[in-house]
Amino acid sequence: MPSYYKYLDLVDQVDSFPNIATHPVAFAEKTADYSRFIHQAHTIGYIIPIVLDALKDTTLSGDWWTIAPGVVSLNGDTTEERTRNIEETTRRWREAKKFEILSGWRNEKYTVYAPKSTPCFYMERCATPLFGVLTYGAHMTVYIPATPTTPMRLWVPRRAAGKQTYPGMLDNTVAGGMGDGVGPWECIVKEAGEEASFEESYVREHAKAVGFLSYFYVRHDKAGGEIGLLQPEIEYVYDMIVKPEAEGGPVPKPFDGEVDEHMLMDVEEVKTALKQMRFKPNCAAVILDFFIRHGILTNENEPDYLEIYTRIHRRFEFPTR
Amino acid sequence: MPSYYKYLDLVDQVDSFPNIATHPVAFAEKTADYSRFIHQAHTIGYIIPIVLDALKDTTLSGDWWTIAPGVVSLNGDTTEERTRNIEETTRRWREAKKFEILSGWRNEKYTVYAPKSTPCFYMERCATPLFGVLTYGAHMTVYIPATPTTPMRLWVPRRAAGKQTYPGMLDNTVAGGMGDGVGPWECIVKEAGEEASFEESYVREHAKAVGFLSYFYVRHDKAGGEIGLLQPEIEYVYDMIVKPEAEGGPVPKPFDGEVDEHMLMDVEEVKTALKQMRFKPNCAAVILDFFIRHGILTNENEPDYLEIYTRIHRRFEFPTR
Repeated sequence: MPSYYKYLDLVDQVDSFPNIATHPVAFAEKTADYSRFIHQAHTIGYIIPIVLDALKDTTLSGDWWTIAPGVVSLNGDTTEERTRNIEETTRRWREAKKFEILSGWRNEKYTVYAPKSTPCFYMERCATPLFGVLTYGAHMTVYIPATPTTPMRLWVPRRAAGKQTYPGMLDNTVAGGMGDGVGPWECIVKEAGEEASFEESYVREHAKAVGFLSYFYVRHDKAGGEIGLLQPEIEYVYDMIVKPEAEGGPVPKPFDGEVDEHMLMDVEEVKTALKQMRFKPNCAAVILDFFIRHGILTNENEPDYLEIYTRIHRRFEFPTR
Repeated sequence: MPSYYKYLDLVDQVDSFPNIATHPVAFAEKTADYSRFIHQAHTIGYIIPIVLDALKDTTLSGDWWTIAPGVVSLNGDTTEERTRNIEETTRRWREAKKFEILSGWRNEKYTVYAPKSTPCFYMERCATPLFGVLTYGAHMTVYIPATPTTPMRLWVPRRAAGKQTYPGMLDNTVAGGMGDGVGPWECIVKEAGEEASFEESYVREHAKAVGFLSYFYVRHDKAGGEIGLLQPEIEYVYDMIVKPEAEGGPVPKPFDGEVDEHMLMDVEEVKTALKQMRFKPNCAAVILDFFIRHGILTNENEPDYLEIYTRIHRRFEFPTR
């Protein structure tokens, strides 16, 4: 293993599912033994073989699924029926300890969408990677701009050493998953309070929406749970400028035990930490996007510029919110 | 025709080629009578039927091409040979007045790439849409930030009424195609001088790289030349903050007759002009990206937010620079 990775290696970590446009053969090989999870004629996820086997076992999965060669669909004519059927399925799997990932049960519902932004069904957050369905989050980079004498500095949290997923790794200043019908703006305002103790009124005034990332993640060991589960994600991204503490700027503080400390790192320190793969993979991608939007990574200084940026702005085959 | 369009309608103008990931059937139908332009095993463009017919006519196209069902390749073992063969082909077509688009001959060479950023061949700029090959440009938005009493304002040029392509339409403050081996940074510095009379040293100090757009354009009537020619493009984008003229900020001035005037438009005026489709299509896309990066268009105020942003950050099947 090299002691320093390339930025593109970080993208490979987080966008690790082949793209049909650029790699049609790899896509065909990868998906050959997957089933498409469909709603009407639309692909809403992918089912890998270990999950398909569980769905076929009606003692575990009831008669809530229709399984055909290469295609799986969830029974139910209404959002409520489909929600109940996938709830029953995942609850039984959890009780039978069928999948390790379900030990992270949160009692938090994520929405899976049919076309035209209508909810197809709601499901337990931690079970979404079993079905390869698209999920949403919001991430914010809080930073102190450069001055003539000081480089730009970013507020970077270190995840708690005891956290189940990616313990001890570096993170974005604020980040959270979007569940329970909350939109990205309300999500980031709430998480900024819960994760970093930023005052709500300050965030509402200073946070700025700057786009989103989209990538298709295949879970690896540090994610916890089964390896190889599929997790396509859209992460809405926000920037927030703060002043230095000495000038009265707010300082992020750990609040709920998820974070051990918040560090103020200058751009060169962040670059080094990225290349040492010390950031959680999707948080690294958020910082690469930040670096590109802020002219820190450019065509002239980064040979993989085009690939990095398009890989983290992936167009999905799934209906979206 | 509605008097006001949606922002997504603007995206439909500029990214009008179906995406295989989201619309596999539309992609298959659209490309059914196209040939792939290949170099070794790589797709480097698409050839539409009227161009294929011209290639098959060896009195026009010599023996410089290999044509098989659904696949076309340019003969030549070296970059130089391939460059000569496509040069001879397009020169003969031009002399025979075979394609109207060749009347815009510029004597400017664009590079078409093989994998690993190596040049596959060089070709006349105006002929690139006949082969559906990927081309590159650089666009810059010059703006005066909002103050507590004044909204953000953008410098917007109006294209000369006598221009061959998109006469009288609104444009980005600075924009140009990337030919002759020039990178995007040098391109934007040069164009900022030629198109808007910005001083080189000012641009080098103040322009900031902020990413790029990528979209697959199918040429329509206002583009000039044959309708339906294919033009996949990557546009590197730059932002540049200037002060108001009253505070000594630089003012863009027409220089080479391509622009009739530069107007200072506030964000609401730009929004209205966008919705009236008064901007050149790809320039509209650059402004939508600017609006998203600057928190003017957000998830909360734009129902097509996700689709707009991913459509203008398309991942191409072609090798890139």
